[in-house]
Amino acid sequence: MKVTVPVQVRWVDLDAYGHVNNAAAFTLLEEARIALFWRGREDAATQFATFIAHQEIEYLLPLSYPDEPLPIAVWISKIGGASAEVCYEIPTATGEIAARARTTIVTVNTATGAPRRITDEEREIWGAYLDAPIEFRRR
Amino acid sequence: MKVTVPVQVRWVDLDAYGHVNNAAAFTLLEEARIALFWRGREDAATQFATFIAHQEIEYLLPLSYPDEPLPIAVWISKIGGASAEVCYEIPTATGEIAARARTTIVTVNTATGAPRRITDEEREIWGAYLDAPIEFRRR
Amino acid sequence: MKVTVPVQVRWVDLDAYGHVNNAAAFTLLEEARIALFWRGREDAATQFATFIAHQEIEYLLPLSYPDEPLPIAVWISKIGGASAEVCYEIPTATGEIAARARTTIVTVNTATGAPRRITDEEREIWGAYLDAPIEFRRR
Amino acid sequence: MKVTVPVQVRWVDLDAYGHVNNAAAFTLLEEARIALFWRGREDAATQFATFIAHQEIEYLLPLSYPDEPLPIAVWISKIGGASAEVCYEIPTATGEIAARARTTIVTVNTATGAPRRITDEEREIWGAYLDAPIEFRRR
Repeated sequence: MKVTVPVQVRWVDLDAYGHVNNAAAFTLLEEARIALFWRGREDAATQFATFIAHQEIEYLLPLSYPDEPLPIAVWISKIGGASAEVCYEIPTATGEIAARARTTIVTVNTATGAPRRITDEEREIWGAYLDAPIEFRRR
Repeated sequence: MKVTVPVQVRWVDLDAYGHVNNAAAFTLLEEARIALFWRGREDAATQFATFIAHQEIEYLLPLSYPDEPLPIAVWISKIGGASAEVCYEIPTATGEIAARARTTIVTVNTATGAPRRITDEEREIWGAYLDAPIEFRRR
Repeated sequence: MKVTVPVQVRWVDLDAYGHVNNAAAFTLLEEARIALFWRGREDAATQFATFIAHQEIEYLLPLSYPDEPLPIAVWISKIGGASAEVCYEIPTATGEIAARARTTIVTVNTATGAPRRITDEEREIWGAYLDAPIEFRRR
Repeated sequence: MKVTVPVQVRWVDLDAYGHVNNAAAFTLLEEARIALFWRGREDAATQFATFIAHQEIEYLLPLSYPDEPLPIAVWISKIGGASAEVCYEIPTATGEIAARARTTIVTVNTATGAPRRITDEEREIWGAYLDAPIEFRRR
C-alpha cells in the first residue's frame, strides 16, 4: 500500500538552474521515508538506527518551488532479514511524475552499528506498506 | 582515466547520526563532477546545461568529518549522443571506499532545455576521462 | 500584525549535535519570510527581487526534530524607501522561544539589481504586517 | 591576529538567484570558525561543545561560484568567562568584502550542556587570534 506524505519544497532546495537540486531531491525522499517509518513511533528510534546501503533515482521532470507541499508517494517493495527496500514517486505541482527512486536501508543496532534482524512486530507494521517495486527505465 | 578531485566535507554535511548524510554525499559528488566538466572552462557553462537523468549510489562505510579534503575519484564510463555516464568513488579519510556512484547526465540546450548533441570537441576532451564503469554489488 | 507560518523542520537540518544547525535556522526563517511576501502573489516575483542586507539572530534554546511543523511568527518592523525589516520568532515544539531574528531586505530591480523604491501598493499590503521590532538581549 | 581559512563555495550553495544563499553564507563561516577552534586539536571536541548564542551578518556584495576556495578571514574579538565572539570577513573571488559577520559562542559542558568556563589554556591559545571587533554599518 502506497502512503502519501506531503513534503514542502524549500526555496533553498533550488539551485542556480532554478530547479530542485539533484541532491535536495534525496532530502525530500528522506522526509517521506522518515514519516513512513518513524512518525508517531518515537520509541522506534531508540530500538534501531538505519544505515542507507544503496539508492537509485530517475529524474523525469524538473521540480520548481510550489506553494503547497508535494504529495510524495512512499512504500516498501521488499523486506529482507535486516534490510528493506523503500520506493518513492515525487510528483510535480501539477501531478506528473518528476522522479522515482528506491532506497535500500539496513537496520542496525543503535549501540554497535551492526546489522540487526527486523523483528516480527516491525515486519507486521511494515508489511502494510508493501507494494510493487519501481521499474527504472534508465540504468 | 580517473581524475582525483579534493572535496572538503563540511560539518553541516553530518546529520544527527554523526556521519555524512546520504543526500550530502550527492553534493560531494556534484563538486567532483563539476570540476571534471567545468573548472577552467567557464565558456562551457554558456554552451549547454546538464539535466541529471539518473543516479545510483552504494554506501559502503560511513563518512565522518575529516580535516583534509577527501580525494574523490571521478571518471566517465560512457559517452552517448546527448548523454554521458559519470562514475565516482568517495574514500574515507583512511583511504577505504566509502561510497561508489554513477550519474547519467543529459546535455541540454541552455535556452530551450531540449537534449543537445555532444559536440566532437567535447567528445575529445571527455574521452580522456573514459574508464571502466562501476559494478554495483547491491541492486 | 504577526503572522504565523508553519515550517517543517527536516531531519537533515540537524547537525551532529542532534539539534537544528545554526545556518539551517536561517532556512526556516527564509520559508516564513517568503510566505509573508510571496505566497499567493506570484506576480510579485516578477516585479522585484530582494537582496538580503543584514541579519541578526539570537538562539535561546536548541531545536530538535519535531513531527509537526513549527509555527514561526513573522512580521515587519519597519518599511523604508527601498528596504524593510522582517522579524521572526521560532518556537520549540513545546511553545518556548527557541530563536528570535531580524532580516533587513532591500528590494531590487529584477533586471539591474539596483535598489528599487517600494511602491504604494506594496507599502499598503506590507503595512498590515507591521509590529514592534525585536529587542535583542545579547549584542 | 586574523587567520585566513580557504573555504570552497559549492554549486549547491547558490540559490535560484544564482548567488550564494544567505543561509549558506553561515555554513561558510562555520567552516572557518571550526578551522580556527578545532582543526588539529581533535581532543578539544571531547572537552567541550559550543552553543551558538548570537549571530549578525552584513551582506555587501553577492557571492558567485568561484573555482578557487575563498580566503575567509576569521578572528576572535572578545573572550568572556564562558563565551567568545568570533568575527569574519568573506571576500569575493576578486578580493572585495562580500560579507562581514560576528558569532557569539558559549562553551558548554559536553555531558550536561551547561555553560562551562573557558580554561586558562584555551584562553592562551585563543588569545593569539584576538583582533578588533567588526563595526556593522547597518543595524
